[in-house]
Amino acid sequence: MDAEIIAIGSELLTPYRQDTNSLYLTEHLNQLGVEVTFKTVVGDTRPHLVQVGKTALGRADVIIFMGGLGPTEDDITREAVAAALGLKLRRDPELVAALYARFAALRRTMPENNERQCDVIAGAAVLPNEKGTAPGQWIEGDYEGKKKIVLLLPGPPWELKLMFEKQVLERLRAALPPAHIATRVLKVAMVPESTCDARIAPIYKKYPDVQTTILADAGEIQVHLRSRAESLAAGRQRVDALADELEDELGDSVFSTGGESLEQIVAYFLEMRGTTVSVAESCTGGMISEHLTSISGSSRYFLGGAVVYSNELKTSLADVPALLIAQHGAVSKQVAAALAESIRRRTNSTLGLSVTGVAGPTGGTEDKPVGLVFHALTDGVQTEVVERKFIGDRERVRRWAMRQALDLLRRKLM
Amino acid sequence: MDAEIIAIGSELLTPYRQDTNSLYLTEHLNQLGVEVTFKTVVGDTRPHLVQVGKTALGRADVIIFMGGLGPTEDDITREAVAAALGLKLRRDPELVAALYARFAALRRTMPENNERQCDVIAGAAVLPNEKGTAPGQWIEGDYEGKKKIVLLLPGPPWELKLMFEKQVLERLRAALPPAHIATRVLKVAMVPESTCDARIAPIYKKYPDVQTTILADAGEIQVHLRSRAESLAAGRQRVDALADELEDELGDSVFSTGGESLEQIVAYFLEMRGTTVSVAESCTGGMISEHLTSISGSSRYFLGGAVVYSNELKTSLADVPALLIAQHGAVSKQVAAALAESIRRRTNSTLGLSVTGVAGPTGGTEDKPVGLVFHALTDGVQTEVVERKFIGDRERVRRWAMRQALDLLRRKLM
Repeated sequence: MDAEIIAIGSELLTPYRQDTNSLYLTEHLNQLGVEVTFKTVVGDTRPHLVQVGKTALGRADVIIFMGGLGPTEDDITREAVAAALGLKLRRDPELVAALYARFAALRRTMPENNERQCDVIAGAAVLPNEKGTAPGQWIEGDYEGKKKIVLLLPGPPWELKLMFEKQVLERLRAALPPAHIATRVLKVAMVPESTCDARIAPIYKKYPDVQTTILADAGEIQVHLRSRAESLAAGRQRVDALADELEDELGDSVFSTGGESLEQIVAYFLEMRGTTVSVAESCTGGMISEHLTSISGSSRYFLGGAVVYSNELKTSLADVPALLIAQHGAVSKQVAAALAESIRRRTNSTLGLSVTGVAGPTGGTEDKPVGLVFHALTDGVQTEVVERKFIGDRERVRRWAMRQALDLLRRKLM
Repeated sequence: MDAEIIAIGSELLTPYRQDTNSLYLTEHLNQLGVEVTFKTVVGDTRPHLVQVGKTALGRADVIIFMGGLGPTEDDITREAVAAALGLKLRRDPELVAALYARFAALRRTMPENNERQCDVIAGAAVLPNEKGTAPGQWIEGDYEGKKKIVLLLPGPPWELKLMFEKQVLERLRAALPPAHIATRVLKVAMVPESTCDARIAPIYKKYPDVQTTILADAGEIQVHLRSRAESLAAGRQRVDALADELEDELGDSVFSTGGESLEQIVAYFLEMRGTTVSVAESCTGGMISEHLTSISGSSRYFLGGAVVYSNELKTSLADVPALLIAQHGAVSKQVAAALAESIRRRTNSTLGLSVTGVAGPTGGTEDKPVGLVFHALTDGVQTEVVERKFIGDRERVRRWAMRQALDLLRRKLM
């Protein structure tokens, strides 16, 4: 089964806004065995939308229209889809009454225009909107001899998601032939994209029935696996077999096979071991602390951090001897190690983690080029120091360095 | 003039990836007086792409195809667009020779398949690709009696942007009727979206010839103004008149009218005044330091920060008396003020900035609910404390709090 997702709204044709609902819908449709073959963005222009609707009816089995269901003159989705389908609209008196009641309960007078939201395409099932006033619509029927499912959903993501989960998912599952889709995602830390692909391509190519998608970010690669099979067990077997082979190849660079983020995994290990950590960071400027504290409850294991940008601060806030900085430079193994140990001692945490480096674009020298970063992790007895040279702009170097710090922590706790 | 942007690639139909090139292209097209009226995403399937191409030729004047220009069997854009236009492809011997030379220079043997990248649509101008091997193509001609401009551009953003800037922009300007588009963007700090719109809607509605787009994020609103006029001077006059009225209404909540980010404005003021700052943050967990240090050269004014998540750290790292925390709680005016003053003293900076609050979702009480945040800013003589109650999830509360801190700094320096 093929689907087309149509996002409606002139604001989605500006340089500032983008449809993101389609990613959410695609994930769910794929799980039901439906492939998205086209995505279209169109403005609030009736003839354009009618034409887009007709084209979609000619090339997809499931057609989802998003947006343009509000009360204003711009909201033309209902009329345009009815026209594309060759069906009539009728105003639903029950919906009108409910809408007036809703406004009355808020002690507000309803503008008459709002009644437009109660126009229903002939034969459509109305999908209640728990988060807004515009109901959705579900139309299932023949169009030029072929069975089609047409959906009208609201544009705001929180309205669309709730309606899809509560009103659409089960209907779709019932209306579609059963599909058995197995998925897995492997997340890999600190392996460059080309290296990762060179190592895993010979493996995933042996599994033509599993669709493999590789997404790379600074210091993190996600390998998404997906397989459609005659039964869920068969699909799972295939996906798991490939995942096992990939894990064997990539070893402990794989930090998650259940969708967790690197900071979630680190948080899990810290909690499990009853370990606390504190961070002294220079070039990452707070990014490591920010990621560790993005998780609710992080105060149980994250004691705090120092952002020691200046040499003076490295001394006054993190007790690094000024002489050490003068001897080796702020970006050095020695200063990294001293930072880690002193933040650990000062905060009385189990582990001390530090980063010092040159994020760029300025500040690089021949000895200490842009992208050079030292990390240190200590438990008070043993100190591990890692030297890396990252490639990319300031933001990218900082993100690589942040991920390297979290990965160092993960490996220590593993 | 209307444009359609077509993104090609099956990976753009997965839940994981999204076309972002179209936002960049839209910005430039709008500046040339071209409106984007349709955007389409289609996979690497020849009949699908031919059909999408024909549909676009029937409804837009400028059609931009992105992606699918590589050397593999999946890269079918050249063939499909030629078929949609009813034109022939021919292999360009000069391009073939250059491609072989390029591989030879890298001491690599070129797979024969790569020659496909040298197939040129009849009548097309070849657009050199400085960052990759796949050249782009520019086709200008009649299609069913109407003048069309058709562009083939590579998918990777860095290749597309360079090619567009160097090879396409001037050609487009020469080929299109002259357009005079004036734009401005006002950025507004710490005003809720509904309040902002209620205040400015009566103003921008008086300017029907200026297109006003409002984008809201936590603690920041962008108001984009755009006007097309008979001359650039006339357009600018209109946009500036509206911008002036909006600035009068919103006052010093407007922090930028030239596109700068809040941290850039703060950086500018700090540099100009020769002021240094340090930060002690609790609930924002490093986010404020991270934003201040996202700017290259920030070591000149940002001395450092302390992420004082635990009560002990507030005492040991930022010298807040334990008694003060016991008396008033960690989330209090008193602790915020003490944090700001002690980080300032400890780092010897001109200004000390602090944040303490409940980011949620856990940790709230009746007295100190989730979203309650105290900010303090001190110069050693005067200390300003701000109490705010933000609404939203953990990430949103943290972002509001980060922006509030930066805005406090901006207002102090203004």
